[in-house]
This record gives sequence, structure tokens and C-alpha cells, in this order.
Amino acid sequence: MKNSKKVVVFDTTLRDGEQTPSISITPSNKLEIAMELDKLGVNIIEAGSPITSKGEREAIKQIINQKLNAEICSFVRALPLDIDKALECNVDSVHIVIPTSEIHMKYKMKKSKEEIVESALNSIEYAKEHGLIVELSAEDATRSESDFLIELFKTAEEYKIDRACICDTVGILTPDKSSLLVKKIVENIKTPLSIHCHNDFGMATANTVAGINAGAKECHVTVNGLGERAGNAPIDEVVMTLDKLYGIKSDINHSQLSKTSRLISKLVKVPIPANKSIVGENAFSHEAGIHVDGLIKNTSTYEPILPEEVGNNRKIILGKHSGKSALKYKLSLMNIGLNNKEFNQVYDKVKAYGDLGKYISDIDLKTIISEIKGVNIAKKVYLDELTVISGNKITPLASINLKFAEDYNPNGTFKVDNPINIGKSTDVRKKGDDRKISKEIKLDNIREAAYGVGPVDAAINAVRKALTGVADIELEDYTVKAVSSGTDALIEVIVNLRRGNEVVQVKKAHSDIIEASVEALMDGINLLL
Amino acid sequence: MKNSKKVVVFDTTLRDGEQTPSISITPSNKLEIAMELDKLGVNIIEAGSPITSKGEREAIKQIINQKLNAEICSFVRALPLDIDKALECNVDSVHIVIPTSEIHMKYKMKKSKEEIVESALNSIEYAKEHGLIVELSAEDATRSESDFLIELFKTAEEYKIDRACICDTVGILTPDKSSLLVKKIVENIKTPLSIHCHNDFGMATANTVAGINAGAKECHVTVNGLGERAGNAPIDEVVMTLDKLYGIKSDINHSQLSKTSRLISKLVKVPIPANKSIVGENAFSHEAGIHVDGLIKNTSTYEPILPEEVGNNRKIILGKHSGKSALKYKLSLMNIGLNNKEFNQVYDKVKAYGDLGKYISDIDLKTIISEIKGVNIAKKVYLDELTVISGNKITPLASINLKFAEDYNPNGTFKVDNPINIGKSTDVRKKGDDRKISKEIKLDNIREAAYGVGPVDAAINAVRKALTGVADIELEDYTVKAVSSGTDALIEVIVNLRRGNEVVQVKKAHSDIIEASVEALMDGINLLL
Repeated sequence: MKNSKKVVVFDTTLRDGEQTPSISITPSNKLEIAMELDKLGVNIIEAGSPITSKGEREAIKQIINQKLNAEICSFVRALPLDIDKALECNVDSVHIVIPTSEIHMKYKMKKSKEEIVESALNSIEYAKEHGLIVELSAEDATRSESDFLIELFKTAEEYKIDRACICDTVGILTPDKSSLLVKKIVENIKTPLSIHCHNDFGMATANTVAGINAGAKECHVTVNGLGERAGNAPIDEVVMTLDKLYGIKSDINHSQLSKTSRLISKLVKVPIPANKSIVGENAFSHEAGIHVDGLIKNTSTYEPILPEEVGNNRKIILGKHSGKSALKYKLSLMNIGLNNKEFNQVYDKVKAYGDLGKYISDIDLKTIISEIKGVNIAKKVYLDELTVISGNKITPLASINLKFAEDYNPNGTFKVDNPINIGKSTDVRKKGDDRKISKEIKLDNIREAAYGVGPVDAAINAVRKALTGVADIELEDYTVKAVSSGTDALIEVIVNLRRGNEVVQVKKAHSDIIEASVEALMDGINLLL
Repeated sequence: MKNSKKVVVFDTTLRDGEQTPSISITPSNKLEIAMELDKLGVNIIEAGSPITSKGEREAIKQIINQKLNAEICSFVRALPLDIDKALECNVDSVHIVIPTSEIHMKYKMKKSKEEIVESALNSIEYAKEHGLIVELSAEDATRSESDFLIELFKTAEEYKIDRACICDTVGILTPDKSSLLVKKIVENIKTPLSIHCHNDFGMATANTVAGINAGAKECHVTVNGLGERAGNAPIDEVVMTLDKLYGIKSDINHSQLSKTSRLISKLVKVPIPANKSIVGENAFSHEAGIHVDGLIKNTSTYEPILPEEVGNNRKIILGKHSGKSALKYKLSLMNIGLNNKEFNQVYDKVKAYGDLGKYISDIDLKTIISEIKGVNIAKKVYLDELTVISGNKITPLASINLKFAEDYNPNGTFKVDNPINIGKSTDVRKKGDDRKISKEIKLDNIREAAYGVGPVDAAINAVRKALTGVADIELEDYTVKAVSSGTDALIEVIVNLRRGNEVVQVKKAHSDIIEASVEALMDGINLLL
């Protein structure tokens, strides 16, 4: 707990988060995560369980070598062997976990209460002799007798434990019970109490917050609520609830919460649910007419906090629930002016799209407007043709033909790096002109071919190659979204593109992932051009 | 509230769920969802907002025509026009929503308290005159003066409202405050009170449950916590928490919760997070050695309820946290016997895989074992060659060559439908034998080609075609999982295959989605053969 200034201490259990079924973290990812947690302001990082494996110990040692601000802790059973492995890693502290419920002692450990307590005390003594900070956790505390917990912690205090912790191992706590249990324990012990909650009934956040409000000084949380089964309490929810709804401060840097959440999601390959509170993509997105209308007038009508406070973004979505004020607001954001008649026509089309079960993206809206206005304000460059060859014994390759809209002639002529790229072109040379082929050519189409690690990569590379020198657009992010099932089902692709300071996000669903990817890319390019 | 036998009534706001940003539901999907909710035992279905659009009204009418057991309700503003549209749909009840907080009345509605109350009373009168059940909701109730809420509901009682509801519109309630507010209101009014919570701070479930425990008789929930921003309280969490942790019963059929959750996830194309409590894929999955060890001895050590109670499944996952007892348990489930030396070798390999950041699937485990035993118990049929051609102007097509393991010779010879399918084959005819080519041939490989709606579909079709007559394996489900980003990033494919009563699930990650799909399919086939 180095440099802890605040009332509540956050202990991020990278160890528990890593116990998420089906995920596994490489040592280098683990190091990256620990460094990110330290930047976020986490006070204690439970980096792992050194007994697990050699790789695990290497990872913990690498984290220790960073000399982070956070205390680096490791999980151990009440066994000298486990503590030796922790000492080998040179950690600051150990988190000794012993079961305290009848069911865990009897069925899992097959040991008596006295044997369990004895092993705990021996381990504490051994760890303290070796200069370690010690946190003693009662596993399954919420199904244990509270008098036994108090007795255990009081005895452990004589052995100089630094922190005591109650674990709601199977997530059966309620906020009321959390509050009562914490109150009873803190009234009887001197050591600071921690609380560790699981989310089996969806109440990990509420139970953690209730425990802190009742006097616990530390809580165990994970990023994105990762962890065994339904996971642990998510750090973002606990931090923001304590701060905004209880006025309890911490060292956590709020505005970094979304960034940390996204980084860890990427590293462990577990997506953040769109409707995740605080850090989710939809947490500050609005579609319903009433909501958007209210929001335009005053954001606090439908937002409890500002998205920028937690590093997230506000989004206005058009769909069948959108009202006229939402469409007006959206058009103003897109700098598009319409007369009354046009506006009403666009509004009706948006509603009709919504009724078909469709969500209206920015490019869809532009297409609707261009149809109604009878001019092409939408697409500057089209995908005319795409062919992809792929397989397990060949290098995936793609060829494309892009066409440009007639009214699109940026800078009159183009500089292109490689004239071979150009298919049908308006040659600037006259008959008899024997100059080398000019690099400044008016384009109406470009052909290109490229290879890649897979067919999507090849196709995207071909588009990128074709547009090099035409538009300085960068592909910032590409994600395939979980989709409905079936090999012929829709696959949704999301691309984020940047041109200078302007960033757009485009989603495209198609039963062919390659076409979805290229179409999303083309739509994004059109939005930016 | 037809047939309500129990203490708490569930009102599933299909309307609020549909307000999830970026989703939209077609009328036929809406009907399917309503029928599913009725089967689940939901008492009231808020089917939509009739003023929204013509399509919306059609969808509500179709639901009404089903004559479901549930009461069919519709959302309306306090406007005669909205109520007329609801009457046009022939709904059982209306949910009249009026803002009651200073910020909503002043900034959004630009109306005085008196004007708001008057419009509410006029609407209630109008709706009651037309024979509708009326629920009156106070929007943003948790930022409203509680005395004003009581005054409003008492006045509305004189106009014969059937239910009153408090909405935590921006999700700022805490369980304590929910309990206090509900207690204060129910002590002062005679009408049953409902509670409607949002999840902006991750506490929608806890706040809903606290409200019910304090005396509210009804709660508004959604399936999978869908809804505006971070969504509403998820039905599965509220139902199971009330039942298991508070002993409060409802009409909801617990064992259908997972099925309903999956169906709606598919229809609205919003995935269920793996770590979603109760209904998530990981809710009853276990990896950590300590956990699996305890679980084998007694499931209640690490599971608060049995997965079958909510229609979910238990899974044992192998990875770097797996202990020896987990591996033993897994091997016994797979009917694989190993001697001590082999067991230890396999265990070390599983750990080493885990350290590399890998999760060990059933087929990976079989491969490890076959390497150690020096026999090929793993693969019966291999993908030798795969080529795919796809594009926006051609029909996607794929060719494959499958090879069979030497020791694999099911039934000695095969009956195949079409000898053309067979590449290199051991012809059963002798020299001079002029019989027609026999259809019973020992296989060592099969070539096949097929088309599809996209390249993945084409490739899968080719494999299916090749194995027709060889193995009666059915592709039950195919899902692409959200992945890390980048066009060259890994894409995870999950296939569920069935052969008779045996079902396997295989996950495969590859940077090429086509290869990932075919490899997953081949692995699944090998597991089943």
C-alpha cells in the first residue's frame, strides 16, 4: 500500500482475472497489463500465483523489475512451499488464502478448523519472518460463521498480519449482508479489512461498495469483471459508484478507465459487452427520440456523468426510435443542410429503415440524403470488382478494381507512385508525345493486387495499396464482431479510419467477411473524402 | 396481471430492450420474442411504443393476436394521440410515463409541475374511460422529491391507476436508497408499486432487488440487460437473486432462463458476455486447480446453484491453472486411461501450453496424449489441401482434399454416393475385371468442390459434401467470436457438431477465417470419429 492517500485501496487481482475460463495470458502481456494498472493508479497488484508454473514466476519477476508504484502481491496457499516460490520472485506481499466455511474445510480440504487455523498461523509467521507484507483471506467467508472469522483474524493479528480479507467466493452476498458482516468484523479487529466479491448473481459491485461503505478499507476488483465463472467486481463500476454515489475517493485515475478496459480486452481477447456500464461502447450512446431530445437540451437528463470523465464517448444513433430532434442534431453534426420537405422525406426513410430492423449508420444516412436530393453526395469511390484466392497451401491474394465518381476530381489530377496501378486512365500525353508516362493523371479507376496473411488481409492490403497517394487515410482499427450463428450468417465488421484529425467508425454486415471488410473500408473512405 | 400467483410480477420491457443503441427488431422477431417471454412466465410484456411507427403498431397487433397469457402493455407519453395509437393496437394496458424531476420537467419538457400533473391525470382518465389497465411511471423518480411522487401517486389513485412505478432513469440509485424510497412510497399509497432500474453504475440488479424486498410488487427487467446505454436490470439475475438469496418467488420458469437468453441474443444480434452471471458461457465453467478440485468433491464449494436449475451447463477447462485432479477428472470424462508416467508427461505439457498463453481444447489434449503415447489416437481425417476463390462478382467456391489416417478404416470399405468424389483410391477390381467401378472402396483421400454464399460457407459445404456417406455428422451451430483487432489478427471460430447423441464443441483461432472454420470443423469431426 505504498503512497496510499485515499480512503479506499484498490487491489486488482490480475491473478483472479486470469482465472477467467479459456483465457491465458503470456508473460509479456502480463507485464503490459501490470504497467497499465500501475498507470491507472491501482494500489496493489496481485500479479499471480508463483506455484502455478515456471512461466508464472518469470512473469512476476519481470513485473517486480519494473519498480512500479503499486505493491506487487502474490497469491499463496498456507504452505511453506508456496511462500518460498513467492520469495523467489521477490514480491512485496503475499495473499494467504485459507478456507473458513464448513463445506470448504470438510469437503475440499478434509481438515478440521484447528488444522486450518494452525497452517494459516504457521504460514503468516514464516512470511513475516521473511519480511513480507501479509494479507490473510478467509475463502468462502460469506458461508462461514462470523464469530469464527473474528476469532481467526484476532489470532492472526497477534502474528502481525497487515490486512484481513473476506471473500464472497460463490457470490451469494447481498448488499445488506455485506454491510452487516463488514461492520461486525471491523468493530472487533484492528487490522484493515478487505472485501473480495464474485458476480454469480450480478451483485459483485453492489456488495463491494456496501462493504467499503460499512468500513472495509480495501477491495479486490478486476478490469472488465474478469475472473472465474461470472467474474469479480469490475474496477470501473466500483470506483465510479464509490466516488459519485457515496463520495468515497480513491487513487484511481477516472479518465483512464476506458482506455485500460480496452487494452486489457484486446490483450486477453475477451470483448467488452456493448452495454457494459461506464466503459462499454453503448454506455453513453442514445437512440430513443425522447432521450436524444432531452440530451440535446441538457446532457444530465439522460447521463449520470459525462463520458469524458471516464475516457468514453457520447454517440447519437439513428433508428426507428429516433425523433426529429435527433435527426436534426445528427445533421448539424454532419454539416448537412436540408429544406423542410427534404428533411421530412429523410425522416420518413430513417423510420422505414428502422422498421425493417435496420440501424442507420452515417454512410446510410448520407445515401438516403443523396437519393432524396438526387445528387451523389455520398460515394466518391466505389468498389467495382473484388476477387480473392486463398487456401492452406497458397499465399492469400486479392485483386480489386476501384471506380471514382464523375464529380470527384480532387486536385484535378493525382500524383500516384506507380503508374502500373492505373487501369483505364485519361492519359495526359498527346499523340506523338514520347515523354515517359506522367505521374499526374486524372483517375477514373484503379486496379491493384496484394497478398496477406489471410483473404481479408489481402483484400484490405489491395485497397490500401490502390489508395496510396490518392487519399492519406489510415486504418486505425479493424474488429470482427460476434454475430448470429451459421456459416451463411451475417458477419459484422467495424473499421476505424483516420484522415488527419478526422476519425470515422463504420460497421458493415455481410454474409461474406471479405466483402463486409472491404465495403466497411470503402464506406469509411467515402465518409472521409 | 392475469394469473399472477406470486409475490413479484415481472414486466419485461421489450420496448426498453429494443432501445439498445444500434439494434432494431423486425416485427416477426418481436413476435417470436414475445412468445418466448410468455413461455418463460413473464407476467407483463411491454411490447412497444405504438406512436413510433406503423411497423411498430403492426408488430404489437400481431402479439395481441396470439392471445398470450401475459398482459400486453404499451408505452405512451401523457398525450391522447399516443393513447389512441395504443387503443388502435388493442393492448391490455398502457404504461404512461411522465417526468417528475426538476431537470426533466424544466429542461426537457419546459413545463411546470402543475402542467405535467394535469397532463398525466387527463391521460389516465382518457385511458381508463377506454377500458385500459394503467401503470403510471415517474421518469427520473430517483432525482425527484419523494413528497411530490407520493402526492402525484395519491392523486392518480383517485383516477384509478392500477400500478405506480418509479424509474431510476439514469441509474444513480443505491440499494439503500432504493429500499428507503420504496418503503416511504408504499407506506403512503394503496396502489402496487413497480420499480424500473438502469445499470449505469452496474447496480440495476441490486437496486431492483432492494426495491422488491422493501415492498415493491413488480419490477421492470429486460433479457440480457438490454436497454438504453448500459441497459436495464437483467431478468435472470433479478429472478434468481430474489429466489435464492431473499426467498421471494415469481412465476418465472428458472430452467428456461438460459434458452431465452440465447434466443434473444441471436435475434437481436447482441452476444451474451461469456462472464455474464447465470446465463453466460462461463457462469459454470471452472479452470483453476483449487476450484476444480473442490468442485469434484462437492459442486457447492464453487457453485452457488446447479447449472441445470437455470438451463446452463458446467464446463471444466484445462489451462495453466489446472491442477492434477482437474486433468484426471477430464481424462475420466473422455474415457482415456494413462499410466503414471504418461499422466505426468501430459500434465507437464498442459502446463507448458498454458504458459504460452494457450487454452487447451479437447482436441489439443488428445493431440498431446497421442504424441506422448506415440500413437495416433487423435486425427482420423486431415485437411490436406484447401483452395477458395471469392469476390463480389463471382460465386464463392472452394475445393478441398481430405486425407485419412492409415489406421482409420471404418467398416473396411466405404459406400460412397459418387465415385467421382474419390481421388487416389485402392480400386477393388483386379486386372481384366470389367465390372462397373464398385461403390465400395477403401478410402485414403477425398476431393470435393462446392459453392456457397461466401468463402467460409463454400469451404464448409465442400467438407460436408466430401464426408456425406463417410460420417453422419451434423453441423449444429457455427459462430464467429469477437476477436482482437487488426486485419491480420486471430479470428476465433466455434463449431458445435453432432453425431447421433454425441455433441462436441470446438474452438479454433487463425488469422484466416476460412482456415479457422475448416480446421474447427475437421477437429470436431475427429473428436466424433
